[in-house]
Amino acid sequence: MSLPLPAIVLVRPQLGENIGKAARAMLNFGLTDLRLVAPRDGWPNPSAGPAASGADIVLEKAKVFETVADAVADCAHVYATTVRKRGLVIPVISPEQTGREIHANDGPSAILFGAERSGLETEEVALAGKIVTVPVNPDFRSLNLAQAVILIAYEWSKHVELAVPTEGEPEEPRATQAHLEGMIGQLYAALEDAHYFHPRDRTPATKNTIRTILTKAGWSTREIQAMRGIIRALVEPGGRPRS
Amino acid sequence: MSLPLPAIVLVRPQLGENIGKAARAMLNFGLTDLRLVAPRDGWPNPSAGPAASGADIVLEKAKVFETVADAVADCAHVYATTVRKRGLVIPVISPEQTGREIHANDGPSAILFGAERSGLETEEVALAGKIVTVPVNPDFRSLNLAQAVILIAYEWSKHVELAVPTEGEPEEPRATQAHLEGMIGQLYAALEDAHYFHPRDRTPATKNTIRTILTKAGWSTREIQAMRGIIRALVEPGGRPRS
Repeated sequence: MSLPLPAIVLVRPQLGENIGKAARAMLNFGLTDLRLVAPRDGWPNPSAGPAASGADIVLEKAKVFETVADAVADCAHVYATTVRKRGLVIPVISPEQTGREIHANDGPSAILFGAERSGLETEEVALAGKIVTVPVNPDFRSLNLAQAVILIAYEWSKHVELAVPTEGEPEEPRATQAHLEGMIGQLYAALEDAHYFHPRDRTPATKNTIRTILTKAGWSTREIQAMRGIIRALVEPGGRPRS
Repeated sequence: MSLPLPAIVLVRPQLGENIGKAARAMLNFGLTDLRLVAPRDGWPNPSAGPAASGADIVLEKAKVFETVADAVADCAHVYATTVRKRGLVIPVISPEQTGREIHANDGPSAILFGAERSGLETEEVALAGKIVTVPVNPDFRSLNLAQAVILIAYEWSKHVELAVPTEGEPEEPRATQAHLEGMIGQLYAALEDAHYFHPRDRTPATKNTIRTILTKAGWSTREIQAMRGIIRALVEPGGRPRS
C-alpha cells in the first residue's frame, strides 16, 4: 500500500513568516501537505511567501480549516507535538519513533503543531493517538515552530528512498598493502640517505613508528602516489612531480 | 576523559538574525560554544539578541575569529557541513553519524557551517576530516542556516546521556588542528623550495589534496612531531633528528 505523505497541521499559527518557514522545512525533507487551522491573520498571508524561500508550492496547496478535528478528518493516525502531557493517558514518543511509525502505519498520518506561544489546547492533544515530545534542554525549551516541524520532517525523511546523499565521486578504496610497502620502502631509503636513523640501535623501533604512522592513515592508491611524489620532490629538489 | 561540548563554527555569517537563531537552536539541545569567523556585519550584532529568544548566554560567550583555521585551532576533529564534495577525497557522513562520532572522539570537535548563500569555500572544507551532509529533497535543497545547526545539535543531543567513555588503554589523543597546521605549513614551504607546485595554477588544488591526505590520517601530537622530523630530515640531509 502506498501511503499519502503525512500532513503537517499548524494550529492557530500567528506569524505568516513562521508558516513560510514551516513550509520550507517541510519541502526540504519532501513533505508537501500543509494544513492550517484558524491562522490568526487569515490566509493567504503576504509574509509567508518570502519566508518560504521558494517552497511556494507548499503554500499554494495549503488547506485551511476551522478546527483541528476538520483538519485531520481524513487521517488515520494523529500525533500531537507538545512538551506537556496535561494528565492525558496518551503514549509519548520521540521524533525518531514518530518518523519510523508513520511509514509503518496502515493509513494517512497527521502531526499537529500548536501556536507559537500557547501551543495546543488540551482538547486538541486529546484528538491524537500519540504525543510527540522533542527531548530538549530542560533549561531552554522554547523550540521555534519551524524548527519543531523540521525535526519531525527530518526524522520522517530518514526512512524515505528519495533522501539523496551527497553528490560527487565515490570514496576511493584503501590502497593495498603492497602499495603501502612501496611507499614505506621509498621513505626508508630516503631517510637512510639523509642519515635520519640515529642511533643505529634504535632504527628498528623508529621504523616501526614510521610504519604505524603511515599505515594508520588508511590512504588510497592515489593518495599514496601523491605522497611518493612528495617524498621524491623533497629528496630531489627541482624535480617535477610526475602526474 | 571528559570532552568539551562541540563548537559550532559559523563561517562568514551574513545576518545577525541567523546568528541569533543558530544560538537558540544550539541551546535547545545543550550546546553553548559558538564561534564566528569574519561575521559580515561585525560583532556584536544588534539583530542577534532578539532572534535568540533568550539564548543570550550563547551570544555573550561567542568568540570571533578571522579565519576558520584560527577558529578550530584547539579542536582535534573538524566536520564541514556541505552538500558538495568539490572533488575532495573526504568521507561523507550523515548528521546521525556525526552526532554519534562526536561523543566517541578522542578530542574536541568543531562543526563548520558556511555563509547563508555561498556556503563554505573549498579550502575551508579541506580543513575538515569529514564532510557532513544532511540528506535533503534533491528538488529543494536550500536548508536554512539555523535549521542545519539544529539538526546537528539534535543528533548530538541524542547521545548525551549514553555517552560513556570506553574502557581500556587510552590511545594517544588526536593532535589539535593547530599542530596539524604547523606540519602542513612546514611541508608546503619545503615543497615550494623544491619547486613541487607545478603548474602554478593547479597549486590550490594540489594543496587541498595534500591537506586532505594529512588530515584524514588522524595523527597524534607525537606522530605529527615524528612526521615533522622526517620532513626536516629529507629537506636537510645529514641533519640529526631532534629527539
